[in-house]
Amino acid sequence: MPSAVTLLSGGLDSATAAAMARAAGFELYALTIAYGQRHVREVRAARDVAAALGVREHKCVDIALREIGGSALTADIAVPLGRSDAEMAHGIPVTYVPARNTIFLAVALGYAEVVGADTLVLGVNQVDYSGYPDCRREFLDAFESLANLATKAGVEGSSRFKVWAPLVTMSKAEIIRTGLELGVDYGLTWSCYTGGEVACGQCDSCRIRLAGFREVGVPDPIAYAP
Amino acid sequence: MPSAVTLLSGGLDSATAAAMARAAGFELYALTIAYGQRHVREVRAARDVAAALGVREHKCVDIALREIGGSALTADIAVPLGRSDAEMAHGIPVTYVPARNTIFLAVALGYAEVVGADTLVLGVNQVDYSGYPDCRREFLDAFESLANLATKAGVEGSSRFKVWAPLVTMSKAEIIRTGLELGVDYGLTWSCYTGGEVACGQCDSCRIRLAGFREVGVPDPIAYAP
Repeated sequence: MPSAVTLLSGGLDSATAAAMARAAGFELYALTIAYGQRHVREVRAARDVAAALGVREHKCVDIALREIGGSALTADIAVPLGRSDAEMAHGIPVTYVPARNTIFLAVALGYAEVVGADTLVLGVNQVDYSGYPDCRREFLDAFESLANLATKAGVEGSSRFKVWAPLVTMSKAEIIRTGLELGVDYGLTWSCYTGGEVACGQCDSCRIRLAGFREVGVPDPIAYAP
Repeated sequence: MPSAVTLLSGGLDSATAAAMARAAGFELYALTIAYGQRHVREVRAARDVAAALGVREHKCVDIALREIGGSALTADIAVPLGRSDAEMAHGIPVTYVPARNTIFLAVALGYAEVVGADTLVLGVNQVDYSGYPDCRREFLDAFESLANLATKAGVEGSSRFKVWAPLVTMSKAEIIRTGLELGVDYGLTWSCYTGGEVACGQCDSCRIRLAGFREVGVPDPIAYAP
């Protein structure tokens, strides 16, 4: 049975990508990076999602990115609320975390090498990606090339690392439909950037999620602030 | 004045690379990654080296790589002692930390983007590199390409990231000579893998260091176990 390291943030996308990897026949090693983000609530969600997926192992690695700051998710910068679709469509927002997916994939690569997995799964997508540069196909391809130069397993040829981002060209609605077909319990997931006990419904992440459920025509099972 | 993020481990190589970057006219932002390594002694050395270099800022970011293990430097695997030159010349040793330099450069990239630096400096070299795949020129070139796809600064064109590894083709003796000319105080540095209060003199890192000082014909200023 092939095995994969799957990055699990606790959000809707990564839960769906992991379910797709399981359906594709991979044994899963889940990896959550707790990076000093405001929404530590996500990390709790990641544990629930990992348990529901029946992963072989779930590791949570702390990285103190708050030390370098530079993002609304790691520093004292306000998360923008209530932005329109037009506003969200332009530019890279302040929720961008410098080099986040490079850092996440790097740790996933190390973990994969330790457990002998050769596939790195992540739930990025470039359609609803809020303008993050490290959610694009060309970034993922460049990381895949790097992975095979960076590691003992890659250099010795015992692994040929692959980056699998099955959501990369899907819309949020397509992602949700796919996850529902695979039995993902979206009630366990958490997407809100603000980190309260219920989702705010106003940040970019909540708005994109809610629009996706609306398009699919099913209710989002999580609670939102009134 | 151009600025650079310089990875500072506390060891001899990274101290020399940082001194070369300072001599080349960069303002330095030093970054130390505390990754659960056995030789936390190195992190204390990094603080001393950063202070001696007069860096603009020194950040220390904790990453719990011990969680994923897989190396003599992060897990309960013995550091090999007393290996001959011939033994050191073959294969990748158990002190290899999976994806270490990928992880380090990724965090350095994030830090560089936050402070507006466009050069990442690190002290790897592929001559005395003990067989680590992520100390080779082709790895560094691949990371440089990745960096410009991964970041807001790279994509928007406000920075063109460069990876500068000035030691990459130097021997240990050449590195030491260069550092001495630049006034590096090697008495502040720490290279030993075993993490005692004095260096062991027997691990690969100590042996390569001691051979370098012997070749240069000056005494190594740090203390070694008798």
